[in-house]
Amino acid sequence: MKLAFIGLGNMGYPMAGHLAKQGYDITVYNRTTAKAQHWVEQYGFTYALSPLMAVANADMVFICVGNDNDLSDVVLGKNGIMQGLKSGAIVVDHSTVSAELSRDLAVLLVQRNVDFMDAPVSGGQQGAINGQLSIMCGAKEEVFAKAQPILSAYGKTITHMGQIGSGQLTKMVNQICVAGLLQGLAEGIHFAQKSGIDVEKALNVISHGAASSWQMINRYQTMLAEQYNHGFAVDWMRKDLDICLHEAAKNGAQLPVTQLVNQFYGEVQDLGGGRWDTSSLLVRLQQKN
Amino acid sequence: MKLAFIGLGNMGYPMAGHLAKQGYDITVYNRTTAKAQHWVEQYGFTYALSPLMAVANADMVFICVGNDNDLSDVVLGKNGIMQGLKSGAIVVDHSTVSAELSRDLAVLLVQRNVDFMDAPVSGGQQGAINGQLSIMCGAKEEVFAKAQPILSAYGKTITHMGQIGSGQLTKMVNQICVAGLLQGLAEGIHFAQKSGIDVEKALNVISHGAASSWQMINRYQTMLAEQYNHGFAVDWMRKDLDICLHEAAKNGAQLPVTQLVNQFYGEVQDLGGGRWDTSSLLVRLQQKN
Repeated sequence: MKLAFIGLGNMGYPMAGHLAKQGYDITVYNRTTAKAQHWVEQYGFTYALSPLMAVANADMVFICVGNDNDLSDVVLGKNGIMQGLKSGAIVVDHSTVSAELSRDLAVLLVQRNVDFMDAPVSGGQQGAINGQLSIMCGAKEEVFAKAQPILSAYGKTITHMGQIGSGQLTKMVNQICVAGLLQGLAEGIHFAQKSGIDVEKALNVISHGAASSWQMINRYQTMLAEQYNHGFAVDWMRKDLDICLHEAAKNGAQLPVTQLVNQFYGEVQDLGGGRWDTSSLLVRLQQKN
Repeated sequence: MKLAFIGLGNMGYPMAGHLAKQGYDITVYNRTTAKAQHWVEQYGFTYALSPLMAVANADMVFICVGNDNDLSDVVLGKNGIMQGLKSGAIVVDHSTVSAELSRDLAVLLVQRNVDFMDAPVSGGQQGAINGQLSIMCGAKEEVFAKAQPILSAYGKTITHMGQIGSGQLTKMVNQICVAGLLQGLAEGIHFAQKSGIDVEKALNVISHGAASSWQMINRYQTMLAEQYNHGFAVDWMRKDLDICLHEAAKNGAQLPVTQLVNQFYGEVQDLGGGRWDTSSLLVRLQQKN
């Protein structure tokens, strides 16, 4: 079984590393070559100088890039994988992109007898490093069945959601829930700070009840300490919420708070917080006063 | 130790019951007398025909009523407790009301040598029945110390938050966090339904990650089943959010999403959902299509 992995970012780097540690014959590609070189120094195997070269003879190709444009480029661009994929290969896309692009690429790939699976992940960089990601998959049943054992190198929960695109749609549901939740948490903390009570004590008390959330439990202390150089970056969240809102414009879903929070993240970017954790919505509220 | 308990609603009824089961000598009062009679049939002891009569000789008086007006009436009204409280008594208020009223009542009560503690609860009717409430207390240290052992009859977590009013402020932080969180959850489920994926499977997957919350885990199945005749009613949530927004107008906190969700709850009331669970924000989104 020969693998290719394209995109050695915060997520892709450790994910490809887990595949290498499992002993799969793997070739990696990264836009910035130095990072691919560093990866090879750490894990062995080889790196390629283009996506096209990386996928030569690969049975399974993993992609983990930034956005719709990056994914299109990697697949359809000048040195993209399209012309190099061997018949019968499977392309597994871990990027968070639109369901529409997933479906479009699947149609193009099937013409070359290549199967596609959208497989966005959640669990963050730490989940990637620990091999504990949650992976939401959209693919034909038999494609999922072939990919699943290999994904278990870094996936803790690997779920077949349904047809192509349904992995991305599930990821969007996740991001929509997170957006409203984080703004609520930010407003709660902001209110607590303004009201003069012991904020840490208050958060500790309410984190055991109906207001409790993963974000509250894992982020209230860093929010109180004004630490945002960790976690999931605002730039990425904006990209994801743009995808959600674009999809909602098509399917007719009403997302008033998601839309508002997306604007708020734009204001956090204006404050220089593009790389801050998504919990930095609190900074925006504090700046407003 | 002689106790009085005023307000036998969904919460007060079982809370007073726990005190009775502990063997405290207790007199209850409820605006609708039939309910007080029913309580006495169930737990023994006695009921009074006014708050004033209920507190005669009481060492500790518990109040659990609906809103600021109800609380003012019970304390300061024509047959209110004010003129009947014995010197050295403690008034513990479990209602969710404004911090301002808590502080004002405390000032008036101290003139009669009576101490006050604001002690709003969370955990819902089920928490009251099971004696597993979380109680957030604002009072002088020595007042809290006297009340705590008695509150343990129905409190699982009893926290001294600080000075009078700080219990209410903590409860407000809780409600603010819940409001944004629930709207995010409702938008996520609404989007999932519109997108045609397996919504239950999607919610099950994401409820283990960064989008996870008490509300998601405990409410997504009832939301999908369109069951709302349970939980915390929209009418009460609106009352609580009005208190939050009123307080924020004074302390300067910015609560854009809380304000918006409060409006949304108003629309749920217009749909006839005043008694529905707060998770019914989903119904409003579905109606918009």
